[in-house]
Amino acid sequence: MRGRILAVMTGVVLIAASAWSETDLLTRAQGMFKPLPTSPPALKDNPASPEKVELGRMLYFEPRLSASGLISCQTCHNVGLAGVDLQETSVGHGWQKGPRNAPTTFNAVFNTAQFWDGRAKDLAEQAKGPVQASVEMNNTPEQVVATLKSLPEYVAVFKKVFAKEAEPVTFDNMAMAIEAFEATLITPNAPFDRYLRGDAKALSASQLEGLGLFMNKGCGSCHNGVNVGGNGYFPFGVVENPGGEILPKDDPGRFKVTNTASDQYVFRSPSLRNVALSPPYFHSGKVWSLRDAVTIMGSAQLGIKLDQGQIDHLAEFLDALTGEQPQVLHPVLPAQRIATPRPELGS
Amino acid sequence: MRGRILAVMTGVVLIAASAWSETDLLTRAQGMFKPLPTSPPALKDNPASPEKVELGRMLYFEPRLSASGLISCQTCHNVGLAGVDLQETSVGHGWQKGPRNAPTTFNAVFNTAQFWDGRAKDLAEQAKGPVQASVEMNNTPEQVVATLKSLPEYVAVFKKVFAKEAEPVTFDNMAMAIEAFEATLITPNAPFDRYLRGDAKALSASQLEGLGLFMNKGCGSCHNGVNVGGNGYFPFGVVENPGGEILPKDDPGRFKVTNTASDQYVFRSPSLRNVALSPPYFHSGKVWSLRDAVTIMGSAQLGIKLDQGQIDHLAEFLDALTGEQPQVLHPVLPAQRIATPRPELGS
Repeated sequence: MRGRILAVMTGVVLIAASAWSETDLLTRAQGMFKPLPTSPPALKDNPASPEKVELGRMLYFEPRLSASGLISCQTCHNVGLAGVDLQETSVGHGWQKGPRNAPTTFNAVFNTAQFWDGRAKDLAEQAKGPVQASVEMNNTPEQVVATLKSLPEYVAVFKKVFAKEAEPVTFDNMAMAIEAFEATLITPNAPFDRYLRGDAKALSASQLEGLGLFMNKGCGSCHNGVNVGGNGYFPFGVVENPGGEILPKDDPGRFKVTNTASDQYVFRSPSLRNVALSPPYFHSGKVWSLRDAVTIMGSAQLGIKLDQGQIDHLAEFLDALTGEQPQVLHPVLPAQRIATPRPELGS
Repeated sequence: MRGRILAVMTGVVLIAASAWSETDLLTRAQGMFKPLPTSPPALKDNPASPEKVELGRMLYFEPRLSASGLISCQTCHNVGLAGVDLQETSVGHGWQKGPRNAPTTFNAVFNTAQFWDGRAKDLAEQAKGPVQASVEMNNTPEQVVATLKSLPEYVAVFKKVFAKEAEPVTFDNMAMAIEAFEATLITPNAPFDRYLRGDAKALSASQLEGLGLFMNKGCGSCHNGVNVGGNGYFPFGVVENPGGEILPKDDPGRFKVTNTASDQYVFRSPSLRNVALSPPYFHSGKVWSLRDAVTIMGSAQLGIKLDQGQIDHLAEFLDALTGEQPQVLHPVLPAQRIATPRPELGS
């Protein structure tokens, strides 16, 4: 009988301790992360409207923004594949392989800046890059505008959306509309979001372990905020170089943007939202397993060797960052006209 | 006064004649063509279900059916571009140019057979071709099945859809599901459909002129039925060879299927539904203007030189074949797994 009472008392103490530590974990997590909002955020200098979002949706899926007429934003940022292309590095015009892994467009509106090196300050600036890159869409702003102006349905929508402008059909306005659409590509209500809002049961025991490790081991130093990353610049291989395949010597990262020695091999930390859906990992796209990526981050960034149990907990926590995927209606695009520039496939 | 009465009487006679001829035109048109149904037809040996259509929609948009992980049915049969790619001939694996212009998937379920040479008896058989063609998706049935089996979400849906089969995840069942989805890609309620159902005002005066020419000049001999074509085989250049660019010597058409001398340069007549949305024209894709295509058909097939007014009327009638485009929700595709075969881009 005494044994039984002791057991019950021990149980009470354990429950109390566990309850305390769970509250503590949640409080700490709420200090480090924020849940994703369930509706798109307001954009600086680019007020959204249903018509602008709709125009952006059309342009996002418009292959005629590329010289070949084959490549759209959607090609490398597939709305059915968590906003990525599941390629090491993206493939563009002429089947050329680009230099870096495609970052997702999903929740990208919450990133501090765009591209792995942060060279675009927002999604509108970002959108103009791939359209012109010779290894991506290989087009020119002039040709894009000629294409859009040849398609009366676009001209009408641009006029409506940018009503106050004398010249509504411009390359910049194309980018603004794409930004407005991309801002709708958010993935709210992940288990972790529900947890952050106070639903203690939203995460499994293993995921809670993973969250604790994530904060205690230092992962959260670079991956925090609403996007669990995407908001700061950090050197890759700060403790241990992960090797030339994963961190190729010829890509110095942000150094190419700032030309500052301390920015050698510095990259914007990626958001970890939906990370389980978006292999392969790192800017080089050489790592296909999330557990391998976690292991490499431990050694390269934190100088620790995570054991298998820790890796599993962390990977399961990362699974809890998978949110509700956006439901996107494929747009009906304007009919080709005689004046529309024709596909240029190159030689 | 007598003059006025005469004028009124003449008017009555003219109206009566015109009314008679309009009724006659409609009756003749109803004998030669049929309106598109507003819902998908039943498929022979492939009963549809919402789950099968949904699986087919996922597979239609699934780039992992290709070796590269970059090309899906949607790449060349874009649901936002009337089921085509607006390319002369489609571009596939390794940026290779295919031999023929991509026929639309829209309303293709109503065609007698599939491909320009009719070598596939139905859409299920068709779907298996491009997946394996080295210039298109460059994959193998084994690799496709390995991919599908690696993705538990697909396995679950295949099991549900093909519940009676011991081995539900097969290359053939992939094709059956795609066929079920493609059968939903129909474009009803074009002005011409409304006209065929008795709405005399659905076509403009010029379109009615065009319809008359279409039937009287002989266009309707090869382009008739519910799809205004797609239901028979005919030699291209039967009266006059349109030239080696439009009818390349090295593509003998149906001869390659039947090995019969009389099938030299014989092709399945394409459906003219949504023809205004799907340039460029002919199997060679060398003609971008619908009016030019009409002119060439006149000389090559009918041995007549159409004048500009006739060409305009015919082109305007063809515009009346543009139906309501399907609204397709982009599917959310399964998350990549470690066991999923990775992109093979080739050298």
